[in-house]
Amino acid sequence: MSGNTFGKLFTVTSFGESHGAALGCIIDGCPPGLELSEADMQRDLDRRKPGTSRHTTQRREADEVKILSGVFEGKTTGTPIGLLIENTDQRSKDYSKIAEQFRPAHADYTYMHKYGVRDYRGGGRSSARETAMRVAAGAVARKFLEQRLGIRIRGYLSQLGPIKAEKLDWDQVHQNPFFCPDADKVAEMEAYMDALRKEGDSIGARINVVAEGVPPGLGEPIFDRLDADLAHALMSINAVKGVEIGAGFDCIEQKGTEHRDEMTPEGFLSNNAGGVLGGISSGQPIVASIALKPTSSLRLPGRSIDVHGNPVEVITTGRHDPCVGIRATPIAEAMMAIVLMDHYLRHRGQNGDVSVSTPVIGQL
Amino acid sequence: MSGNTFGKLFTVTSFGESHGAALGCIIDGCPPGLELSEADMQRDLDRRKPGTSRHTTQRREADEVKILSGVFEGKTTGTPIGLLIENTDQRSKDYSKIAEQFRPAHADYTYMHKYGVRDYRGGGRSSARETAMRVAAGAVARKFLEQRLGIRIRGYLSQLGPIKAEKLDWDQVHQNPFFCPDADKVAEMEAYMDALRKEGDSIGARINVVAEGVPPGLGEPIFDRLDADLAHALMSINAVKGVEIGAGFDCIEQKGTEHRDEMTPEGFLSNNAGGVLGGISSGQPIVASIALKPTSSLRLPGRSIDVHGNPVEVITTGRHDPCVGIRATPIAEAMMAIVLMDHYLRHRGQNGDVSVSTPVIGQL
Amino acid sequence: MSGNTFGKLFTVTSFGESHGAALGCIIDGCPPGLELSEADMQRDLDRRKPGTSRHTTQRREADEVKILSGVFEGKTTGTPIGLLIENTDQRSKDYSKIAEQFRPAHADYTYMHKYGVRDYRGGGRSSARETAMRVAAGAVARKFLEQRLGIRIRGYLSQLGPIKAEKLDWDQVHQNPFFCPDADKVAEMEAYMDALRKEGDSIGARINVVAEGVPPGLGEPIFDRLDADLAHALMSINAVKGVEIGAGFDCIEQKGTEHRDEMTPEGFLSNNAGGVLGGISSGQPIVASIALKPTSSLRLPGRSIDVHGNPVEVITTGRHDPCVGIRATPIAEAMMAIVLMDHYLRHRGQNGDVSVSTPVIGQL
Amino acid sequence: MSGNTFGKLFTVTSFGESHGAALGCIIDGCPPGLELSEADMQRDLDRRKPGTSRHTTQRREADEVKILSGVFEGKTTGTPIGLLIENTDQRSKDYSKIAEQFRPAHADYTYMHKYGVRDYRGGGRSSARETAMRVAAGAVARKFLEQRLGIRIRGYLSQLGPIKAEKLDWDQVHQNPFFCPDADKVAEMEAYMDALRKEGDSIGARINVVAEGVPPGLGEPIFDRLDADLAHALMSINAVKGVEIGAGFDCIEQKGTEHRDEMTPEGFLSNNAGGVLGGISSGQPIVASIALKPTSSLRLPGRSIDVHGNPVEVITTGRHDPCVGIRATPIAEAMMAIVLMDHYLRHRGQNGDVSVSTPVIGQL
Repeated sequence: MSGNTFGKLFTVTSFGESHGAALGCIIDGCPPGLELSEADMQRDLDRRKPGTSRHTTQRREADEVKILSGVFEGKTTGTPIGLLIENTDQRSKDYSKIAEQFRPAHADYTYMHKYGVRDYRGGGRSSARETAMRVAAGAVARKFLEQRLGIRIRGYLSQLGPIKAEKLDWDQVHQNPFFCPDADKVAEMEAYMDALRKEGDSIGARINVVAEGVPPGLGEPIFDRLDADLAHALMSINAVKGVEIGAGFDCIEQKGTEHRDEMTPEGFLSNNAGGVLGGISSGQPIVASIALKPTSSLRLPGRSIDVHGNPVEVITTGRHDPCVGIRATPIAEAMMAIVLMDHYLRHRGQNGDVSVSTPVIGQL
Repeated sequence: MSGNTFGKLFTVTSFGESHGAALGCIIDGCPPGLELSEADMQRDLDRRKPGTSRHTTQRREADEVKILSGVFEGKTTGTPIGLLIENTDQRSKDYSKIAEQFRPAHADYTYMHKYGVRDYRGGGRSSARETAMRVAAGAVARKFLEQRLGIRIRGYLSQLGPIKAEKLDWDQVHQNPFFCPDADKVAEMEAYMDALRKEGDSIGARINVVAEGVPPGLGEPIFDRLDADLAHALMSINAVKGVEIGAGFDCIEQKGTEHRDEMTPEGFLSNNAGGVLGGISSGQPIVASIALKPTSSLRLPGRSIDVHGNPVEVITTGRHDPCVGIRATPIAEAMMAIVLMDHYLRHRGQNGDVSVSTPVIGQL
Repeated sequence: MSGNTFGKLFTVTSFGESHGAALGCIIDGCPPGLELSEADMQRDLDRRKPGTSRHTTQRREADEVKILSGVFEGKTTGTPIGLLIENTDQRSKDYSKIAEQFRPAHADYTYMHKYGVRDYRGGGRSSARETAMRVAAGAVARKFLEQRLGIRIRGYLSQLGPIKAEKLDWDQVHQNPFFCPDADKVAEMEAYMDALRKEGDSIGARINVVAEGVPPGLGEPIFDRLDADLAHALMSINAVKGVEIGAGFDCIEQKGTEHRDEMTPEGFLSNNAGGVLGGISSGQPIVASIALKPTSSLRLPGRSIDVHGNPVEVITTGRHDPCVGIRATPIAEAMMAIVLMDHYLRHRGQNGDVSVSTPVIGQL
Repeated sequence: MSGNTFGKLFTVTSFGESHGAALGCIIDGCPPGLELSEADMQRDLDRRKPGTSRHTTQRREADEVKILSGVFEGKTTGTPIGLLIENTDQRSKDYSKIAEQFRPAHADYTYMHKYGVRDYRGGGRSSARETAMRVAAGAVARKFLEQRLGIRIRGYLSQLGPIKAEKLDWDQVHQNPFFCPDADKVAEMEAYMDALRKEGDSIGARINVVAEGVPPGLGEPIFDRLDADLAHALMSINAVKGVEIGAGFDCIEQKGTEHRDEMTPEGFLSNNAGGVLGGISSGQPIVASIALKPTSSLRLPGRSIDVHGNPVEVITTGRHDPCVGIRATPIAEAMMAIVLMDHYLRHRGQNGDVSVSTPVIGQL
């Protein structure tokens, strides 16, 4: 089955390269009757868009999405929703110098081995540019989940290189260019990024995503557990190298008495599980955390080889994000929205609708 | 699509509960002509089997697998391979006391909310018992990968609670009951586990898995990247709460100049990528690491509720693994084998066979 | 995706050869809470079973199905249902003579080319024996559809070679060994079959299947239309060479004014559509008809080649059905049940439950 | 899984309504390295295009396809191919009169029941307009199959209402507006259509499709047999009510000695099987035949109901094909091409490439 399709009932199939004519996707399986316009997607696209601060790439992309089908008189019809974003800034000349060089740690080497074809224009399909369509599709899922089920999905940057956010103040997340929830760390992050940019280097980051109001019961053991599908979705984002649910890697050193989330009639007493037990949502917030690597497209020279196998020193001069994690928060939110939407529909298919009247602990 | 099926071309569909009549699975899509007998699977099943040391549950399960179809005159025929393991030790009376109680942090709470049905017999489908079939199916994939492509998949326990393995000596892995590759840490682990057992508590662990000899080109961007499918596969194992590829969460604090794996005509100079670039294998070893939580089935009392919503104090008296991570190494290996096998077939479908003659750096 | 899996939400994955140890299947996605026992399946299995009259093969197969999982305390749990039928009559010696010969018009030739492997035991996987699992799985779907939605699925043999049933009296269908709904034609069919058996030849047949009470709205255009999935399901039955929905091939010569099923507030005035408009059920009975070819396993000699490419004259001496269509009615019913079940769940996933209160014409 | 996706490895996902902004599709899984331009698709699109003779609808659609991704420097890259056709003739006012009326035998009734939404613009998604994307996608498959495997796929109209083609002269097929292979019947067909148009009625048709040069071995029993997937594909085309493979419904009255295609070292002696044995291609031509119903959109009044359940008399005044079968030949060819392409890739995934050196009878 197509590697460019995500989901089983709410499916997103994507196409497009960074320097081609356009990006697009098809959302299939969206329930009918949802009010939907371009504006619903544009809000999230604008949050991901490059060039909104000096800390991201200065490439300009309008990222204006058009709905081509599946919506009639302002509402979804249940038929596939075609979305399109035309590429407006395609300066592929930036890449001409490296047409024959493999950039170290870059996908051009593996794409070449896989397909025997070299699309040197900014990474072609492997560029993070494709994540725009994830954000657009995620916005549809997010709107449905919010309106019909009261689910709220929010993310934030919890660490930028060595700098950790120590407070989680949701109101701060959109007050700075980093999606940082800790106002006290913003100045430090700005200084760090300014120095990094001067240096010509890049840095990794950590993003957390939380979904509140998720009804218990979502997830399809044993292979399509909710956390397994989240791991799939989040690890499929460019540059992600690690995924945690709840306590994540901290649970290695936890004892069972500490890790187990005890329950009382009033609710769970902790959330080490991150809202998922046995692969099924428990009604607690779903909590995931991801690690994003630093970009390998640097103007600092690196040892590599060319397509003939000869050693070369590579310098990448295009416009790249020194920290791809900075723009990743809306992408991670989008992927979580798509997973939850898909699992809600899958659950409803097999089991009927989630019961809003079931007494769920912690939600009384 | 079925949540109990994994894979797209090499598919494993599984059934069975911990205290039902039998476990089984169907492997579909296995290439014909592979020599296969029960013994090929039994070797791995025996490595996962409980009761082989005092550090795992004393429940006795023969875990004898039978091939019911798909093999004729000692070779696979290309038709589906039916596998069966009959349950021999089904003491479900152990669980009768807790028939009406939700165990804290246990899947019985979420299964009840999902399906409206309560199978209190040892967790039913949510029991780790189902992983036996993953190991059996993985053994088939592993054999093919080894024989046809020279791929070797091996795992080890890299951390047991607070105790980290500091050396990686593959020869040691099967010399102790923990799959620990560092002989110097085994005594410490034994003492730790003895104390833990006395205490009645449980502990988490970390497992690493490595696949060597993987040809470049496997993985299907953008959603079915090799690392994304690995994350899916590994996170679907019971008790796993985190997955890393290569440098994993360490890449948050890495700079690009440090993280990027430079290339020379002789090979890559590092492997922070864990063998995957842009979602496609690079020819380097595939390296994954997972965190397993401590089991929540403890004889130490925990606060919980019963099916009527009343507060209860739960004590679990069954025979449980104090560290589920100890037996998890063969399971993680199996899931990696299944993912690689599936992606090899998917790659061959679209692109033709991997070329053994392509000059791949680092494999000259 | 696996060629041995049918369905998207209600999935049936099958294994087993005619002369192997056992046949089996896994049903995944069955809603929880359905009362289910072996007896529910045995009723339909017994209707398909060989040897119940002199007009079918005299091979004896008990076809006793066992439920291995997914049912607890008499009800489905929502987890996968493992089913097993052990083969009891495996006289593979019958086939030894033809181990090196391709039977004319038989699948052994194409299996050999596909897999490079020859399983000469009664056709191995290509034997109609696998349809037993379809019948077992179909019985689960049928029970759900009947109990929850009031859907009734029934089939009959409408033509045996040159003899056409001219009346449709449902009460007659189970009063004769042919599933013939026209009592007046039974004697003629018996005489025809007796002569055919003596001759050593075989004959084709036509089966019709009807589902009544199907709610409007099932079917997923544009590719997974209800009729397209029915065509897939029915054409996948051994020996089927044609599928019609409603008027079928008769519509070639129909004018639009004749073909179109006019509607009044009291209902449709005809059913040329066979209950499907635009790929979606209309609320009218779903009507399908299939053509089954005569078996090619004959004791009358036929020209063929052997595995070395030499010409041979083949005589098949095993015990074969002179008209495979005679036992096909329960199989066609089962496949229709599986398709409707799958589409009901898919519809419910995207659109919520079918409304029993929606005013549907013709059902007021 | 998405009802708007066809195929498993070579997948086509489609969107678009007859009167929306555009139609489009995403082809995923296409092998890299195939030379491809818009012209390759335009040739087949032009054959399907309306308005090329007085016998089809006079609606004018340029049907100009654009490639948005997946092709670089004139060759496919292995990444998804995005295709777009903008709608240029969207006179939706034609439909305003019937905005509240269900047309008899039309999908607007079932779409309304399924989705609870009414898109009255020319049938919206249910319009045959979507088949343009099938033709475009099929052209890609066809080109690959032809270039790499020498497969040739051709179709023709074998019956128009009561008029049957009696000769099969491939050279004639494109010499008349009907795709009729029998020059002697063209005048009769023209007269018939002229009379029909005057009358205001419509008529059914039969289309045959043949694929030559298909290697033996394609098809995935038991459920995804080649013929079953063909039936799925062909029945998913608008207006198709029946599908036959090889002898089709004629096999009901055939005896086994007549039906079975005998083999000699020089080849098969007949092709009742239509090139498929046991669900796998035999090396003989694949032969399928389909029945297309007459359109129900007529200016002759028909009894129906409106959305409020009241009786109405419906007259459809839009521009419709009096025989939808006339333009269906390229669509049927396209669907066969997609099925064969998908099965070729699936076969190659599991079994390795088809061997061109295998001695196949009849192809020596």
